[in-house]
Amino acid sequence: MTTAYQQLANRFQQIYHLQHLGAIAGWDQAAMMPSGGNQARGAAMAELNTLLHRLLTEKEVEAWLTEARNQETEPETLRSIEEMHTDWRHASVIPDDLVKAKTLATNECEHAWRSQRPENDWTGFAANLKEVVNLTRQEANIRAEHANVSPYNALLELYEPGVNTRELDQLFGDLKTWLPAFIQEAQEHQASIKIIEPTGPFPIEQQKALGLEVMKLLGFDFNHGRLDVSTHPFCGGVSEDVRMTTRYNEDNFIEALMGTVHETGHARYQQNLPANRALPVSSYRSMGIHEGQSLFFEMQLGRSPAFLSLIQPLIIKHLCHGKQQPYAAPDNLEKIYTRVCPGFIRVDADEITYPAHVILRYEIERDLIEGNIEVDDIPELWQQKMKTYLGLNVADDHRNGCMQDIHWPMGSFGYFPSYTLGAMVAAQLFAAQKKAMPDIEDQIQNGNLSPGFDWLKQNIWSQGRRYSTRELMTRATGEPLNADYFKAHLKQRYLTQYKRIQPTFMLENITFEG
Amino acid sequence: MTTAYQQLANRFQQIYHLQHLGAIAGWDQAAMMPSGGNQARGAAMAELNTLLHRLLTEKEVEAWLTEARNQETEPETLRSIEEMHTDWRHASVIPDDLVKAKTLATNECEHAWRSQRPENDWTGFAANLKEVVNLTRQEANIRAEHANVSPYNALLELYEPGVNTRELDQLFGDLKTWLPAFIQEAQEHQASIKIIEPTGPFPIEQQKALGLEVMKLLGFDFNHGRLDVSTHPFCGGVSEDVRMTTRYNEDNFIEALMGTVHETGHARYQQNLPANRALPVSSYRSMGIHEGQSLFFEMQLGRSPAFLSLIQPLIIKHLCHGKQQPYAAPDNLEKIYTRVCPGFIRVDADEITYPAHVILRYEIERDLIEGNIEVDDIPELWQQKMKTYLGLNVADDHRNGCMQDIHWPMGSFGYFPSYTLGAMVAAQLFAAQKKAMPDIEDQIQNGNLSPGFDWLKQNIWSQGRRYSTRELMTRATGEPLNADYFKAHLKQRYLTQYKRIQPTFMLENITFEG
Repeated sequence: MTTAYQQLANRFQQIYHLQHLGAIAGWDQAAMMPSGGNQARGAAMAELNTLLHRLLTEKEVEAWLTEARNQETEPETLRSIEEMHTDWRHASVIPDDLVKAKTLATNECEHAWRSQRPENDWTGFAANLKEVVNLTRQEANIRAEHANVSPYNALLELYEPGVNTRELDQLFGDLKTWLPAFIQEAQEHQASIKIIEPTGPFPIEQQKALGLEVMKLLGFDFNHGRLDVSTHPFCGGVSEDVRMTTRYNEDNFIEALMGTVHETGHARYQQNLPANRALPVSSYRSMGIHEGQSLFFEMQLGRSPAFLSLIQPLIIKHLCHGKQQPYAAPDNLEKIYTRVCPGFIRVDADEITYPAHVILRYEIERDLIEGNIEVDDIPELWQQKMKTYLGLNVADDHRNGCMQDIHWPMGSFGYFPSYTLGAMVAAQLFAAQKKAMPDIEDQIQNGNLSPGFDWLKQNIWSQGRRYSTRELMTRATGEPLNADYFKAHLKQRYLTQYKRIQPTFMLENITFEG
Repeated sequence: MTTAYQQLANRFQQIYHLQHLGAIAGWDQAAMMPSGGNQARGAAMAELNTLLHRLLTEKEVEAWLTEARNQETEPETLRSIEEMHTDWRHASVIPDDLVKAKTLATNECEHAWRSQRPENDWTGFAANLKEVVNLTRQEANIRAEHANVSPYNALLELYEPGVNTRELDQLFGDLKTWLPAFIQEAQEHQASIKIIEPTGPFPIEQQKALGLEVMKLLGFDFNHGRLDVSTHPFCGGVSEDVRMTTRYNEDNFIEALMGTVHETGHARYQQNLPANRALPVSSYRSMGIHEGQSLFFEMQLGRSPAFLSLIQPLIIKHLCHGKQQPYAAPDNLEKIYTRVCPGFIRVDADEITYPAHVILRYEIERDLIEGNIEVDDIPELWQQKMKTYLGLNVADDHRNGCMQDIHWPMGSFGYFPSYTLGAMVAAQLFAAQKKAMPDIEDQIQNGNLSPGFDWLKQNIWSQGRRYSTRELMTRATGEPLNADYFKAHLKQRYLTQYKRIQPTFMLENITFEG
């Protein structure tokens, strides 16, 4: 006889198989699909989401959950059942119709946004966004009622279980107090530093070859994944076939290269999740932990002097026809990759102004979902906060203001805080690695990246959702997630480290082959 | 109250939406997916097929069909119900388990075939193929019992409703009597004709640019489709987003160019099917009619002197750096594209040896499904028939023999005859166009392709499955599908037409820029 747990495992496997098709179609939509295919795709995705929702919330699933909890005794199995229960609970409170309506509205809003953004068409965008916000509020209110928390807290639970606005307000409040002065101090430190700008063009094919070689160095498994291009870089697909994207600019390779390193962090987490992947307990822990892996790759490893030394020969090989170029010197790369410069665009932000972008979005989306502000209030609030946090005036340039991100059109409210939580995760993990393996930076410089990756694989990737974020971080690093390591990292990199870098005036006024 | 017909329409819409995801994932599997993703993809596709099968065959569907037939009175609606019934009938006779088993077995067989073929590994391939044949026989036997026909005839019904082995035996028997002598006669006619071979290399990017411009000329809608690369060219995706593939060879552009023209024929049919696409009555008529469109594009239009004159400037522009080249002269292109040369590979076959490849496969697959032969008998039969029909000895070169096609690994037994039926369809349609528009060839040469396409759109594409193949062809051309126009076309092109082409010795011994 099939046990209740086996019934559940079968159902989650069925869901996993169908989600596979949605994940590939989602990647396709962003990376491959011609514009005219969107309506049919949206309808197909809505149908799938409705179906998945139904499969997860059918009456029998609840019965199986209760029965399995009573029947099973193995701790591992009970843990697996708990994570099944979490997924079921998140889904079962939301009616089918709302799932379908939100899928259709976000598909429409996101697709229109792709052309509205370049046209700076706030009015057109706002009309669609209102519907998305309306449906997301309905969703948040229903979730809030069941979980007995506020609506925005109920959404946070979907991305980073266990975190809430009280914690975030405290964390972000702290950042808001010391970041502005820190940004200024770092900029003063950097004022006398001369940076040699890369002189392109850097043909896309060559940048792609570089990116692929760096991905290989970082352990990406090309038998289970690929790299393509999309407007908004992401890491999607399924664990067995991870679809990474990047975007290229022929004038410069800096963003595409580090963007590729970032997404490879996401990809390796996905590719190294526990076996038996259809079980919820084998999925990634949370968005904060996921972003922690990509930021570990990008910020802790990728922008370190050791790693930049390591990949410099690859840059020379692919982009400089094998000739040394001053702009590709490791210390110059380091200066480029740690340059502090407040700007309008989150994804282009440096490491220390980035949290300001997150806090701004957090405050606006929180108030929007809690019903304290409306969609029409967003542009003015955006303007005010950009002024306060980064001293910049975005005015009515919505395309570089509140229309720059895909998250809201996609209906992903509650996601943004994960970026800064991820930065904290990354710093804390790297600090723990350094403690466990004091020579890790030498290892990196020598091209031996496995010790660090093996550590991550053992402590984070292969753990899936076995533990809460709190327990996972405590097991891996000896303490729960906190901001101390992130702060210490920023101070070390942007204040201490810079003192050893000498101004490089000797290279001025010399012209090099481009 | 929702009528039974509306219930049916809703159900078919739901199926259509989910099929969309399968179609995109199928394209991805052939054109994009890394090898390691195959197992998970196969499982996902099997899950989807099982689900689709269940949605189509649930008890209520039969009840709705009966009820709708009684309630509805509009002829169009009754016709729509009939086609729903056909789809339901094809699906309902096959149990869920067999659908799933066949999906898994064909996925496995096809994926392994991709590496077994280059390795000429017949033993490995045969092991998988036996399972596919075993399951296909089960399927065919069940269908046969319900339809009271023989097993292979039951499969034919899935690809070309209304056709059967009696008809095919007669048709192919006739071809077998006159083709060998005809091939010989054509070859004799061509013996004195000097062909100038294209001298490459022709970089893939340039070939792609040429292909895209030719697709545009042929009316492909790039807002609802795209062109990519795959090992086995095909036209897939969905009508709202058609995914065409081709394959390039840097040494020559001849095959890729005409392959692109061929698939564009399929694509235009798909892109111009009736609105309300989720209804079975709005789908394509049959594989024979589908192949008729691609062969109309490739054989009737694409290889005509008028069309080759028309695209010659594009070839010069994209592949010859804007300089005239003797190999790209219209009469030389015509000679290349009508060259008769028996060979091992079906997809590379010329127009008049092609039917021999089809007949060979038809005879083998018919006997295989009817249980008269076994998988182990295939290589010897292949060898014998290649000798008899084309005078070639394939020996144990299975990769260029019975392992060359994707159809059997995919479990598509009963498909092959559609190619030759399609050649007949194409010839008959073009003959009808010439009758209706006597100046059509001048129009083509002048770049005015719309009259021909409008005629196809009106008479074939926009008709979907409203009529049977017999009625559709009679309405379009004045008579049911028959082989006369195909024969006449071959005689005209390979015997009469060649007489006007002069031997081109004057170009011998001259070297041109490559």
